[in-house]
Formats: sequence, C-alpha cells, structure tokens
Amino acid sequence: MQYNVHIDVKREFDYMTIKYPDGHQFHQKPTTDSYHHSESVNFSNRGMTLEAELNESNQFYLSHEIAVIHKKPTPIQIVSVDYPKRSAARIKEAYFRRASTTDYNGVYQGRYIDFDAKETKNKTSFPLKNFHKHQVEHMRQCLKQDGICFAIIKFISDQSVFLLRASDLISYWDKQTAGGRKSIPRKTIEKIGVLIPYQINPLLPYLHAVDTIIH
Amino acid sequence: MQYNVHIDVKREFDYMTIKYPDGHQFHQKPTTDSYHHSESVNFSNRGMTLEAELNESNQFYLSHEIAVIHKKPTPIQIVSVDYPKRSAARIKEAYFRRASTTDYNGVYQGRYIDFDAKETKNKTSFPLKNFHKHQVEHMRQCLKQDGICFAIIKFISDQSVFLLRASDLISYWDKQTAGGRKSIPRKTIEKIGVLIPYQINPLLPYLHAVDTIIH
Repeated sequence: MQYNVHIDVKREFDYMTIKYPDGHQFHQKPTTDSYHHSESVNFSNRGMTLEAELNESNQFYLSHEIAVIHKKPTPIQIVSVDYPKRSAARIKEAYFRRASTTDYNGVYQGRYIDFDAKETKNKTSFPLKNFHKHQVEHMRQCLKQDGICFAIIKFISDQSVFLLRASDLISYWDKQTAGGRKSIPRKTIEKIGVLIPYQINPLLPYLHAVDTIIH
Repeated sequence: MQYNVHIDVKREFDYMTIKYPDGHQFHQKPTTDSYHHSESVNFSNRGMTLEAELNESNQFYLSHEIAVIHKKPTPIQIVSVDYPKRSAARIKEAYFRRASTTDYNGVYQGRYIDFDAKETKNKTSFPLKNFHKHQVEHMRQCLKQDGICFAIIKFISDQSVFLLRASDLISYWDKQTAGGRKSIPRKTIEKIGVLIPYQINPLLPYLHAVDTIIH
C-alpha cells in the first residue's frame, strides 16, 4: 500500500542548515516532496523534522477549517539593506535573534493555542535546556490569560511524539531552577503527557491531544 | 506639565528605513527615547509610528498581566548564511517576504486576538489597498474559528485611531472585489468603528475598544 501525501508548506528557508549564534543547528528539510509509507510502519516520516510535520498538519487544519495555527517567522536582526534599482530590497547583513515567545500560536474553536515544538535524541528523558527562560515565561503569561499552552516533544529515537501541558513543563522548570533535575524522565512524560500517534491526515493530529487537555 | 513615558520595546530593526519589494517603505523610529507632552495636546506622539505605539501598549498590557499580544517578526527569505568561527552566524543575503497572516496576535482573557495595524495619510477615506488579499483571507479564517479579529486604522492627518471589525473590513473588501469602491469613507469608519483615544498608560488602550466589540 502506498500513500501519497501532498504537502504544501510555506517554506521559510530553502534546503539549508542554519546555525544559531549559540551553535545549535536549525534544520529545514525539503517539504514539498510526496512521500511513501509501507504498510507495516507507522505514519511518521523518518526524514521529516518535527517542524515540517507540524507545518503540514497546520496546513491540513487550515484548509479543513479546523484551526488557524501558524509558525511565527524566525526573528532576524537586520543590520544592512541594499536598495538596488528596479529590484527587491536585499538584506546584506543580518543575524538570528532569539524569539521572545513560543514558535506556534493561533486559534481553535475560539480558544487561544500557543505551543513550542522540540525534538530530542535523548532516549530516556527530555532535557530542559531545550527550552529558554523567556519561552517558559511566555507560557506562564499565556496561562494567566487562560490560553491553551503546551509543548510538543518528539523523541527521535523511536519517533514518538507527546503533548506536555505547559503547567507540567513549568513545574519541572521551576524545580530545576531550585536545584532539581535538569530533565523530565520519559516515563513521566508518558504518564502525564498525551501521546500523539502519527496518522495520515493530518500527519500529527495534535488537536486531538489538545481536546483531552481542554476537557 | 510633563510626562516622561519610558518605553521598552523589543526593536526588530535599528534606526532605518526598509523598502519592501513592492517599493513601499517600512519605517521604524527609535523607540527608546522618553518624550514629552504639553498640557494642551492629546497624548499621541506625532513622531511615533502606529507600530511603535502598539508595541508600547502591548508591553504595558504584558507587564500588567492584562493581555499577551505580540507583533510577529517580519518574514524573511534567507538565501545565504556565513558561519564565521567563534562568532554568530551572519546572514549575507536575504529578502523581505509578504506575511501570510496579520501582524499581531495573542490572548486576552482566554480569547484569541488577531489584528493588523495600518496608517493612512488620506483624510477622507481609508484605501483598501493597504490590505493584501491573504491578510483579509486570514481574518476570514480566524473569524470562522471565533477569534476576535479587527484592524486598527490610524489617520495620520489628525492622529485619530479606530478599531474596525474584521467583518466590516471583509464586507467592504468583498464589495470592492465585485467592482465596488476602493476605500472606506472616514465617516463610515467613525460610525461603524470604535474610536481609540490616546491616553498615557497604555498609550493606545485598544483593548477597551475590543471589550466593546466582544460584548
């Protein structure tokens, strides 16, 4: 059996690998190819980043009028711009900035949705260093406004994806700040998080998991 | 009498003027100076762009835990990046892209807030060409999800600012597409919109106007 899933994702970057100032890499895979699944495997695409999977799922939710959720553009500090005659302004010098919010937000049945997505190669726990202080503070602020706020965490080793409530993440974050452990055990995430099993349309049906934390 | 209003806005660009590919300019004024008002004028700052005024107001709403609303970063298409040793990745070539959504969104008392802000030098009407098709489509999608969606329109000539419901904007937009007029008369905006009078904190208390369209 073969599934052809056509993806139409607005790409922010062409095929390239970008390094953030702190040295960690930003991966962006081509997202316009169709791809295939054999019957025996799950629907996850082992070549796709979590970001590409979410973009595709958001595109599905958008086109089916289920939710309007977008990834925010990567913040850039522009230093120098050229204005050639008869052609587009060209940015000659710019730098990546750290975002002051999470990467994804939007609206789902009147509710404000806000989340960040993180992948880890770690097998037994999720390292909290994947989050930055201001992202956690942003989640705290959104929760105070009664927003639906969470993290989507992917364990690359076995391609399992979980929704973790922002309140749980914040609780571990604050314990870490007070000298506690620097990661959340995978077993804890399995217990307090919500598994998001891959399917076809959308690839990552994370709004099902959102339904369970709303109700 | 003198007011010193301290502004702490995350600046995306330093003092510069940027041209979009279609030639219209992006203005960003320095926003960290304190400024003064004489007793007889209103609180609007004639040197400030609407964007700077909104950023300042959003900062006030954020720090007072009234709402979490941010301007999205300007979308950039990156073409070439340098990775110098021992220093930050440097973007060598990039271009401005058109946003596929509105510029501002966030959460206010559990509700999803989504809007765009536009200035016009026009005195008697607001030209619809200030909006792009995809922005209006995005508003239409957000309304279907029961989001609170609107435009903030500033008439520069007399520094008056209005909230215009997205449903009203869309109605004029669709009439234009069907051959109707290419602008909304100012008198109509005064009648169907909600005036946002300048004050001190926040400078543009647009959530008051949002309250009137929610209730």
